[in-house]
Amino acid sequence: MITADKNMTASQQQLVADWQTLLRTFIKPENEATKTILLKYMEPILFGLHSFLNKHVGITEEVSIKDLAEQYKNSRINPYPEKKLADVITDLIENIAPYAVNIASPYFIGHMTSAIPFFMVHLKTITAALNQNVVKLETSKVVSVVEKQVLAKIHRLIFQKDDAFYDEHIQNPDTTLGCFTDGGTLANTTALWVARNAAMPPTDGFQGIEAEGLMAAYRRYGIDRGVILVSRLGHYSLSKACGLLGIGNQNLIPVDVDSRNKLNIKELKQAIRTIENEKGRNKIIAVIGIAGTTETGNIDPLDQIADICAEKGIHYHIDAAWGGPTLMSEKYGCLLKGIEKADSVTIDGHKQFYMPMTCGMVYFKDPHKMDYIAYHARYVNRPGSVDLGIRSLSGSREANSLILDSTLKIMGSKGFELLIDHGIETAKAFAKEIKKRPLFQLISPPELNILTYRICPLYIQEKFLTASQQERHEINETLNYINQHIQRCQREAGHSFVSRTTLHLKRLFNRDIVVFRCVLMNPMTDTKILNDILDEQEEIFNHYFKDILSARSY
Amino acid sequence: MITADKNMTASQQQLVADWQTLLRTFIKPENEATKTILLKYMEPILFGLHSFLNKHVGITEEVSIKDLAEQYKNSRINPYPEKKLADVITDLIENIAPYAVNIASPYFIGHMTSAIPFFMVHLKTITAALNQNVVKLETSKVVSVVEKQVLAKIHRLIFQKDDAFYDEHIQNPDTTLGCFTDGGTLANTTALWVARNAAMPPTDGFQGIEAEGLMAAYRRYGIDRGVILVSRLGHYSLSKACGLLGIGNQNLIPVDVDSRNKLNIKELKQAIRTIENEKGRNKIIAVIGIAGTTETGNIDPLDQIADICAEKGIHYHIDAAWGGPTLMSEKYGCLLKGIEKADSVTIDGHKQFYMPMTCGMVYFKDPHKMDYIAYHARYVNRPGSVDLGIRSLSGSREANSLILDSTLKIMGSKGFELLIDHGIETAKAFAKEIKKRPLFQLISPPELNILTYRICPLYIQEKFLTASQQERHEINETLNYINQHIQRCQREAGHSFVSRTTLHLKRLFNRDIVVFRCVLMNPMTDTKILNDILDEQEEIFNHYFKDILSARSY
Repeated sequence: MITADKNMTASQQQLVADWQTLLRTFIKPENEATKTILLKYMEPILFGLHSFLNKHVGITEEVSIKDLAEQYKNSRINPYPEKKLADVITDLIENIAPYAVNIASPYFIGHMTSAIPFFMVHLKTITAALNQNVVKLETSKVVSVVEKQVLAKIHRLIFQKDDAFYDEHIQNPDTTLGCFTDGGTLANTTALWVARNAAMPPTDGFQGIEAEGLMAAYRRYGIDRGVILVSRLGHYSLSKACGLLGIGNQNLIPVDVDSRNKLNIKELKQAIRTIENEKGRNKIIAVIGIAGTTETGNIDPLDQIADICAEKGIHYHIDAAWGGPTLMSEKYGCLLKGIEKADSVTIDGHKQFYMPMTCGMVYFKDPHKMDYIAYHARYVNRPGSVDLGIRSLSGSREANSLILDSTLKIMGSKGFELLIDHGIETAKAFAKEIKKRPLFQLISPPELNILTYRICPLYIQEKFLTASQQERHEINETLNYINQHIQRCQREAGHSFVSRTTLHLKRLFNRDIVVFRCVLMNPMTDTKILNDILDEQEEIFNHYFKDILSARSY
Repeated sequence: MITADKNMTASQQQLVADWQTLLRTFIKPENEATKTILLKYMEPILFGLHSFLNKHVGITEEVSIKDLAEQYKNSRINPYPEKKLADVITDLIENIAPYAVNIASPYFIGHMTSAIPFFMVHLKTITAALNQNVVKLETSKVVSVVEKQVLAKIHRLIFQKDDAFYDEHIQNPDTTLGCFTDGGTLANTTALWVARNAAMPPTDGFQGIEAEGLMAAYRRYGIDRGVILVSRLGHYSLSKACGLLGIGNQNLIPVDVDSRNKLNIKELKQAIRTIENEKGRNKIIAVIGIAGTTETGNIDPLDQIADICAEKGIHYHIDAAWGGPTLMSEKYGCLLKGIEKADSVTIDGHKQFYMPMTCGMVYFKDPHKMDYIAYHARYVNRPGSVDLGIRSLSGSREANSLILDSTLKIMGSKGFELLIDHGIETAKAFAKEIKKRPLFQLISPPELNILTYRICPLYIQEKFLTASQQERHEINETLNYINQHIQRCQREAGHSFVSRTTLHLKRLFNRDIVVFRCVLMNPMTDTKILNDILDEQEEIFNHYFKDILSARSY
């Protein structure tokens, strides 16, 4: 309960939302003057933001996060209105945007968040204006039907079933080809949730793990430990999903990768054998393949994993949150060969479908598989209805499907192909530039549009080859220190942003290696810009860190 | 892989997205002509949608969902662009909107989805234009700090801690007052996830349930069955959460309610005793109180439940997805007395904060509680950072906090108070109207802004009192049939929409009772409109169903 301040000033009183003012915010304005004003507000939103974001990528030390935090320490909701819409918009543009991150800059190549086509803003606005809730037909009607169609389109892109299959399922209220989620984390979670339940299905005297719980299920099936296998480059959301689902994140078994960061098939087979022969009764709930690892963008041998899963009858999930849209490229789609054999596939809309934050999706080859997680309620989601909330982790949900559906119409798969191909080819060109420079070492060459490298002068690379294990360790530690600090300096300077991660590469050195990580998805990012970024890193190195190497007589 | 159709026509070729056209969609237009066009597109989005939605509430049988579905059966992504942005917008306005649901109509009083103030569309547009990803500081910067502030504001609204508390935690990177989620389902899931982990914490030789899994945890703590208790009017998301978390949805124990649909404290105490004394070792993971049941809008005795939980050391979660914002009303805030004693609280932004779809939130009294679900990754969310993704069910996340923060500034808590009070008082007035009419029976009077009633002529209500059990059953079945069909007729006529659910009320009749359910949150809904809705129901009854009663000589 908030008690009004009795001593408010006269000017505050003028701002108080009275009932009539409030009502007007619920009426779509009918007169032209008001319409013009509201439309006018869109101008700074559509264009003003951009000017303020133009100068810096955003993570500048000029205004540190600590200083910013100091300005946002008011924990009280104001009883009375503080600002009018116009002032709130101005405030967002002048006081928030400049201190946000300019992820749309072609110099921002550090994360899987990038520029989006401007029409995405229009499409998101439509979704908000319609404000449909896709959880049930009664609050979405045709939008639920549109969603089912677009789910079928992406399902077909992945699984390539025939016309008869899609004719049967595209608008079938009793089957489900996939589901929109908040993001990739919940898409992966949904897939593993289904896999968990399918691994311990209802049977005589047992109503299933969803009803009776994991303890009862393990007892019924004589299991001590359920496990899921994935390459050690799996996204951390898989670990989170295992924790959430009661499987335990320690039971997500990391399998080693080969020299190209792809899941090592031999190691996978060995891991499965070990699990099967271990004391205690283990159950493999799922094996996960990755189509575009978060750190290096590599694709697991999807086809070979499929054969192993098929032979063993194990649920096969593919995390294609990043790489999925590559299927739209004639040239590179083949990299994902075998994805059609998966039982479930995650793809993110806000990544390489270039949609606004956030949109995840999960698809199931078998349109009945999501029955394992069906829920009904007395007032909605009745059996047999088209209510999309019946098989879904989320409840209420916005109609992101409208954005994807419209985007496919505007871009065509060929439009996406241009973006995908450009990203991969820019990454390949960047790898060449890195190799040309004696100060840098390419760590993971791009398979898709992601690569990693570090500062490691050529003479040190050579020294490394003949060094003792102890010397190698010392050199690597020094390089880690340098690369970590160069990344931070560059980020804080605010002109460009490359992210940083820590890899573990047997081929190179079996310890933690700090690397720069680049994600090349912005079509405005070209070789000139990438060379600017390398130049800046060289400058920072020469200015602050060169001496460290000399001092240690490297 | 999509193969281009070699036989495309010349007009199709003109539409193909070439690289230059594509690039232009990523550049914010710099010349005035283009700006004007883009701004112009916003006009139909902001205003055009409305006109098309004006006539009908939307669930009309004129165009059945089956007929609509027939129009959306194309499972192929078109390789080439089909439409330009302007055409896509026109299509959405002319071909989608009229067959969507006009949830903004004051005649749409069936669900917790309603009209939103028009400025919400502007705020959502800003969020999309900025496109920040709040999972990490590197893709959000100041927006993460703004989010922490608004979380503190709502935390304070609920828990009323003192200034020193908020000074310490509002911008503390190591503590968490709450978290934004996709919606209420995931907010409840997050709360129960934390409660589950806290109930079986790491200890000597045991690394916790999140790491080792539910089986290992139950064994370590000597538990056969973990349970959660909630009134039998709990939202189905709680059941889903228990299934997801491995607890098992059968282990969500429903506790009976009193005659006012509030959790019966005696029954709760008895249920706890039974669980404690049962054979096998049971553990109560959480007790849940509801502040606004989905079906009837009633509030559990929050204060009394708090005492029981405190005494037993049980995690106390309150599902205030619906009722939470009532705290902003001076008059009705006291209905939620005791909420400040909860360990965790769910509130939805897209419900009574009137935000666009979707926004859930969960708050924890103890700012360290979310440590039980902390996750890090090598490339983001490093310990000690302000990365909001460290303690969150979702990964990538849009900046809904900006919308809530701005809305609080525009409306003030007093603005929300007007809406809350209007809803409750309109519901009370509607209850009076229902009572005035001899054809209707008020089933659950409003405590907040939700009520249920049914068609049940006064003479039948009287007959019911003296009827035998068998007669009562027959009468009730007939009434259920009638009410179910009247609701459907009204929905399909498309002028207004009232939802329907099935209640079980000992006080009235210990069987399933089909009722109309009304949610009164649209400030444009007044007594005149509500009487129109009753009139329509009377007409439908008199026209189609009156005879059924006569035929059965009721």
